[in-house]
Amino acid sequence: MVTSPEHITLIRCPNITLIPETPKGRGIFATARIPAGTVIDVCPVLVLGVEENREHIEKTSLYHYTYNWPIKTRDGKTEKLQAVIFGLGSMFNHSREQNVAWTRDIDHLIITYRALRDIEVGEELCISYGDHLTFVDADAHTQDKDVAEDGIMTLSNIQV
Amino acid sequence: MVTSPEHITLIRCPNITLIPETPKGRGIFATARIPAGTVIDVCPVLVLGVEENREHIEKTSLYHYTYNWPIKTRDGKTEKLQAVIFGLGSMFNHSREQNVAWTRDIDHLIITYRALRDIEVGEELCISYGDHLTFVDADAHTQDKDVAEDGIMTLSNIQV
Repeated sequence: MVTSPEHITLIRCPNITLIPETPKGRGIFATARIPAGTVIDVCPVLVLGVEENREHIEKTSLYHYTYNWPIKTRDGKTEKLQAVIFGLGSMFNHSREQNVAWTRDIDHLIITYRALRDIEVGEELCISYGDHLTFVDADAHTQDKDVAEDGIMTLSNIQV
Repeated sequence: MVTSPEHITLIRCPNITLIPETPKGRGIFATARIPAGTVIDVCPVLVLGVEENREHIEKTSLYHYTYNWPIKTRDGKTEKLQAVIFGLGSMFNHSREQNVAWTRDIDHLIITYRALRDIEVGEELCISYGDHLTFVDADAHTQDKDVAEDGIMTLSNIQV
């Protein structure tokens, strides 16, 4: 497959299904074992302007689906924008014991999701929403050990 | 794979790639031949409320990525809502000689994209935006024979 920066391979793991009705709403579940490090989904994103996000998107139901999207400004500072994820990244539910991690490709407007550990048949695929929680966290009693302050999980313990 | 209404199989055709820079912006292209009728992508959607769409989404860059999403109201009328497509449906560029068609699953909040004809290696995968064009149509001189007024293409000529 093409993998140069001019071509982005749109991998989706076939071992997943969407269940429309779960206690958390829609959710993504494993239909076969998914080994640690497997790419689950590669999603293009749309980065929102600061003004349009604050004036509009934050006031809609879509805001619950957006991600923090930090960019470096010309003066070297980091500005926290928001992005809409055009893929399953918008469907994964939250867990502090997440089994899916993501990495942003800021230059190519892509976010890639990978299995953080082996995922067994029937397990729900969850991410941690990090500091982007817009609801009461049912898992708040558990330790949030893998999540950096901007919501990116460390991938150092798996093959990526 | 699970295909009952309680489980939605999230098919993505592997024979595609995203090219970040084309004359139309980002685009999806075939990396291998895709036979007519092949499912290209199955995308969950988020249906927007009438008010939040009119007051907010229409005033943002995201509006160019939304789709008409008609629903039947209780009194039997059709109300035209808008939906955000969480998948490649948000990435296909427009052509009046489109090679990809879509069908909405209103009940399950899913939209499925299929090849309308055989698609050869290197061809861009395009849909027709129907009446949701938010820009000047470079293909306006060609005949728009396959597009119904609400933007749904007829699939009667392919195996679906």
